Amino acid sequence: MAIDQKPEWSDPNHPENCSSVVRKGQEQKGQPASIQKNIRFQKRRTSEPSVAELYEGVLNGDRSLLARAITLVESNAEQHFQKAQQLLQKLLSHSSKSVRIGITGVPGAGKSTFIEAFGMYLCDQGCSVAVLAIDPTSSISGGSILGDKTRMEQLSRNPRAFIRPSPTAGKLGGVHRKTREAMLICEAAGFDVILIETVGVGQSEVIIRDMVDFFMLLVLTGAGDELQGMKKGIIELADAILVHKADGANKQKAEQTRKEYSRILHFLQPATKGWSTKAYTCSSITNEGINEIWEVIDSFKKAGEKTGVIEERRKVQSREWLYSMITDQLHYHFFHHPAIMNLLPKLENEVIAGEKTVASAVEMLFSLINLEG
Amino acid sequence: MAIDQKPEWSDPNHPENCSSVVRKGQEQKGQPASIQKNIRFQKRRTSEPSVAELYEGVLNGDRSLLARAITLVESNAEQHFQKAQQLLQKLLSHSSKSVRIGITGVPGAGKSTFIEAFGMYLCDQGCSVAVLAIDPTSSISGGSILGDKTRMEQLSRNPRAFIRPSPTAGKLGGVHRKTREAMLICEAAGFDVILIETVGVGQSEVIIRDMVDFFMLLVLTGAGDELQGMKKGIIELADAILVHKADGANKQKAEQTRKEYSRILHFLQPATKGWSTKAYTCSSITNEGINEIWEVIDSFKKAGEKTGVIEERRKVQSREWLYSMITDQLHYHFFHHPAIMNLLPKLENEVIAGEKTVASAVEMLFSLINLEG
Repeated sequence: MAIDQKPEWSDPNHPENCSSVVRKGQEQKGQPASIQKNIRFQKRRTSEPSVAELYEGVLNGDRSLLARAITLVESNAEQHFQKAQQLLQKLLSHSSKSVRIGITGVPGAGKSTFIEAFGMYLCDQGCSVAVLAIDPTSSISGGSILGDKTRMEQLSRNPRAFIRPSPTAGKLGGVHRKTREAMLICEAAGFDVILIETVGVGQSEVIIRDMVDFFMLLVLTGAGDELQGMKKGIIELADAILVHKADGANKQKAEQTRKEYSRILHFLQPATKGWSTKAYTCSSITNEGINEIWEVIDSFKKAGEKTGVIEERRKVQSREWLYSMITDQLHYHFFHHPAIMNLLPKLENEVIAGEKTVASAVEMLFSLINLEG
Repeated sequence: MAIDQKPEWSDPNHPENCSSVVRKGQEQKGQPASIQKNIRFQKRRTSEPSVAELYEGVLNGDRSLLARAITLVESNAEQHFQKAQQLLQKLLSHSSKSVRIGITGVPGAGKSTFIEAFGMYLCDQGCSVAVLAIDPTSSISGGSILGDKTRMEQLSRNPRAFIRPSPTAGKLGGVHRKTREAMLICEAAGFDVILIETVGVGQSEVIIRDMVDFFMLLVLTGAGDELQGMKKGIIELADAILVHKADGANKQKAEQTRKEYSRILHFLQPATKGWSTKAYTCSSITNEGINEIWEVIDSFKKAGEKTGVIEERRKVQSREWLYSMITDQLHYHFFHHPAIMNLLPKLENEVIAGEKTVASAVEMLFSLINLEG
């Protein structure tokens, strides 16, 4: 009976080579379910590719091993962390040839349809494209991000493209680290363009700005109303503003909105030294303006390589990443310390109520921990 | 001979009650200058007012004891820290009746002349005014700040006003803490208005925004050019923008600049919920517009007290101050740890050069310290 449930590819002459699919409640007699689970778990563990295998796979652009390498850096398990760091260490020297592009936008701006259209255009030009998503607010697996892959239907089937949904948080600062490390793996895999999409709101724009070369903001027509709902200062992070959905009856309005943004941009400091941030219109339906955007990014890249702005930006980003991870770790250890967790809420209330000075509260907290080596 | 040099108020019948003023080089024979210095030093120490004396003095609005109380919170000495915290703890319940106003501006905008004119106006209205300055970049005593007091000549002589130059840094986060604590002391002393002026550039605007109720930005005519030199996003922190030096031949241009700022403000999210940030013109020479600004602040205060926005803001500020001081302390301990100081520069270079992953560098650093209690 068990043989009937073996998968299609099992060898009927050697059924022992393939484990059976056993329905729940039909476990073999005399063996409790928990032990069977254990066996299955060990089977998965031993089939996990080695660091060397993953290394080779990533460098050869093997999609399946690339995905597993990213899964490894995204894992919250301690032993996976060590293995992931070994892999990244080996891959580091192969990184940094890709253009790193960040994309954000107001809700409803059509980020996914734009990435689909822009990604397909790049593939048609002979470029390989990796799409990563970041959502610092995510704490549950999947969520809205899973939808992206199904929405980017054409691109996800294109052999030149690779789409990876956003990782979940786990440890403090986890999403940030995982996305950066996934980016490094994609670069080692030789992708020409890495698109990083913000999924969450709030801090995500700043986090992305800190890991990409070029950052663009997707907006809709009606600049004034939109800006109201937009996070403060986000326009000043952008290297380009794209007025999206510039098609059909909306085309003229989009051109007007583009002009409004141009006027605002005139008053603001550019996000990149020596670069003048401009507003553009584009449509993911008619593809109008899509090639223009790539030309803009290409000229940004060429100018930035010449002046060294991009290399300098990457150095600054690495340094800032180091320091932000140190802060994350310090916070993690401090705020998870049992004595701190016990006292902090009480002190916080006293400080807010104006019953205790901040300095004396901080002194009291630090007397509880020992920061010596 | 020594008796001739005793101060006026010395009792001639009991000259031993008063120490002599001894000219340099005329020290008593047989006693080296260093020992005499020591004696003088101890004399100063014992004459330091007690916490109870300072407490009474501050509550009674005694200018001299107020100044000494602020000197105490500004001290970097450990024993002064404890004493200052005792004093602040006693004063805390007397705080928070003042309006806290932050003032920043582009270089050359005339912050000091504005504060002089605005402060004099407030004094004439019967208000008492304390002026504090913050300069997070300061590390040497005095500096440009000392100039302020001499520049605000009229105001510094007004009995209703109290001007205090910016404290120097000392420990990490020190300037920030000292200015906040000086503000609490001034509030306990019953000042109606506390003006906090930014002296440094960069982070100071954000730091001030986080400690005041109302924040204003002084600008000059020619919005476009100025904005270029201004820190990103600073306009979005302001509750009012004042186009300063709106007098004489400059008056019409100032009005035009005001309109330009109004247009930009229309696109931005207001700094305070429910408040509409507007641009105004004023002159510290003709005093035109000065009273209007006070009316604006007054209506801000009345509306904010009604809706609870100001109380809520102060609570949020206290909470954020607590957390930022915790971060400061964590950084201080971490980055001053000998083992960290020894290894960090090497690891930083390796990370920037792309030879080491950030995560493995951080792991290596944290293996050097013990964060347990």
